[in-house]
Amino acid sequence: MLLRLYDLAGADADRCFSPYCWRIRMALAHMGLPVETIPWRFTEKDAIARSSQTRVPVLVDGERWIADSWQIANYLEDTYPERATLFGGPVGRALSRLYSGLGDALVSRIFGFVALDVLRHVDDRDRENFRRSREERVGMTLEALVADRDNRLGQFRQELAPLRLTLNAQNFLGGDRPLYADYAMFGPFHWARCISPFALLAADDPIASWRERLLDAFEGLARKSPGYDIPAAADRRR
Amino acid sequence: MLLRLYDLAGADADRCFSPYCWRIRMALAHMGLPVETIPWRFTEKDAIARSSQTRVPVLVDGERWIADSWQIANYLEDTYPERATLFGGPVGRALSRLYSGLGDALVSRIFGFVALDVLRHVDDRDRENFRRSREERVGMTLEALVADRDNRLGQFRQELAPLRLTLNAQNFLGGDRPLYADYAMFGPFHWARCISPFALLAADDPIASWRERLLDAFEGLARKSPGYDIPAAADRRR
Repeated sequence: MLLRLYDLAGADADRCFSPYCWRIRMALAHMGLPVETIPWRFTEKDAIARSSQTRVPVLVDGERWIADSWQIANYLEDTYPERATLFGGPVGRALSRLYSGLGDALVSRIFGFVALDVLRHVDDRDRENFRRSREERVGMTLEALVADRDNRLGQFRQELAPLRLTLNAQNFLGGDRPLYADYAMFGPFHWARCISPFALLAADDPIASWRERLLDAFEGLARKSPGYDIPAAADRRR
Repeated sequence: MLLRLYDLAGADADRCFSPYCWRIRMALAHMGLPVETIPWRFTEKDAIARSSQTRVPVLVDGERWIADSWQIANYLEDTYPERATLFGGPVGRALSRLYSGLGDALVSRIFGFVALDVLRHVDDRDRENFRRSREERVGMTLEALVADRDNRLGQFRQELAPLRLTLNAQNFLGGDRPLYADYAMFGPFHWARCISPFALLAADDPIASWRERLLDAFEGLARKSPGYDIPAAADRRR
C-alpha cells in the first residue's frame, strides 16, 4: 500500500515548503518508504478532514490518517520496524522530542526574517487569510515584522550557538548519520531556503555545512526541490 | 581507587554551586561511583594545574586528570562501561551533545537573573575578581544586569517552551529515567537554587516538577545541598 502525504504547496505546486512536511519527507526517504505527495493549500481543510484537524503534514496509510510531524514520525517508527530507524531506540526517541520542540521554536524565530517571502509564495487563494492570521498572531503587519531583520540577524545567529558547537563536533545531530533529530531541525532551515533568498546563516557556519549534507542526502531529495540559492552562496555574492 | 572531584565552593565550603560540577555529581551518582569532592575556589588555579586548564569540574581518576563536564561524562561512560549508562548508547551520546550546549547557554541566560546572588555566595577571596571578570564579560555592572529581571522573566519562561512541552510529555529528557541529558540541563537550574531565592520557574511549570524529581534522585543528593526554597515554594509565598 503506497503511503500518501498531504504536503503544503505554494502558488507553484512543486514548491512544497512546510518545515513540518519536510521533516516527514526526509523521514520517509530515510526509511526508504515510497510516498505519493499531494499538493495541499491552506484552504483545502475538507481534503484532510479525516485527520480530525486542519493542518499538514497528514500521512495516509491505508485506512489510517495521521497528523502532526512528531506523531507521524512515531507512527512510522512503530509501524515499519524493519526499516531504518528514525530514533535509534527508546532513548533516542525520548531525546528526540526536545529537538522537535526546538525545531518548532525555530520556525517562529525564522518567520521573523522570512514572513514576507512566505507570503509571496503561498497560493493566491491562501494569501489573504495567511496574512490576516499571521498578523494577528504576531500583533503587527508582516512588513513591520521583517523591517529590521538585518539588525536582528546577529542575535539570531548567536542564539544558534549550541547547535553550531554540536555540528562543529559531529557531522549530524544523530552522530555519524542523520536521524529524526536532524530532520526536525533541518525542516525549518529548508523551509527558509524554499521561499527566501535571505541569508540566515553565514557561509562558514557549521550549521550551513550540515544543511548542505542534508540537501545532498537521499540523492539530493531536498536540493532538487524549488528553492533559493543557499545562504552560503548568497553570502559569497555580497 | 576513589575518584576525586574538584568542585566549586562558596564562602560556605558545603555550598558547591557550579552548574557544571553538578552535572558530574549527578552523573557519578547515576553510575554509583563514589567520589571525594574537594571544595575549590576560583583563586586556587594551582590545585588543578595538572588538568592543564583553570576551571572546574576536574575529575581525578588515579593518574588521570580530566576537565570539562562533557569530557568527564564521556570519560566516565567509556571507562566504566559496567556501570549504568549516562547516554544509553552511541545515538544517545550523539544526541546528548546538544543538551550540553543548551545547558551552557542556559547558564548565561540565568546569570542575568542571579548574578548578584552568585556574587553574594562566592568566597571572599574570589569576590573582587569574580565581579570584575563577569562585568567585563557582560559589559555592565552586575547590579545593572539584574536590575530589570522581573520584567524579563516572562520572556525567559517563554523561551523554555520546548523544554516545557517535552517535560509535559515525559518524566525525564531521557524518557522514563534520567540520563546525562537531564543532568546537563538540571545543573543550571540547580545552580540557581543553590545561590538564589529568585523564582525562575512558576510553581505549576512542568520544568519545576522535573527539577523536583531530580532533587529527589539518588536519595536526595541535590536536595540535601545548601540552597534556597525551590522557586515553586517561593512562588506560593508571594
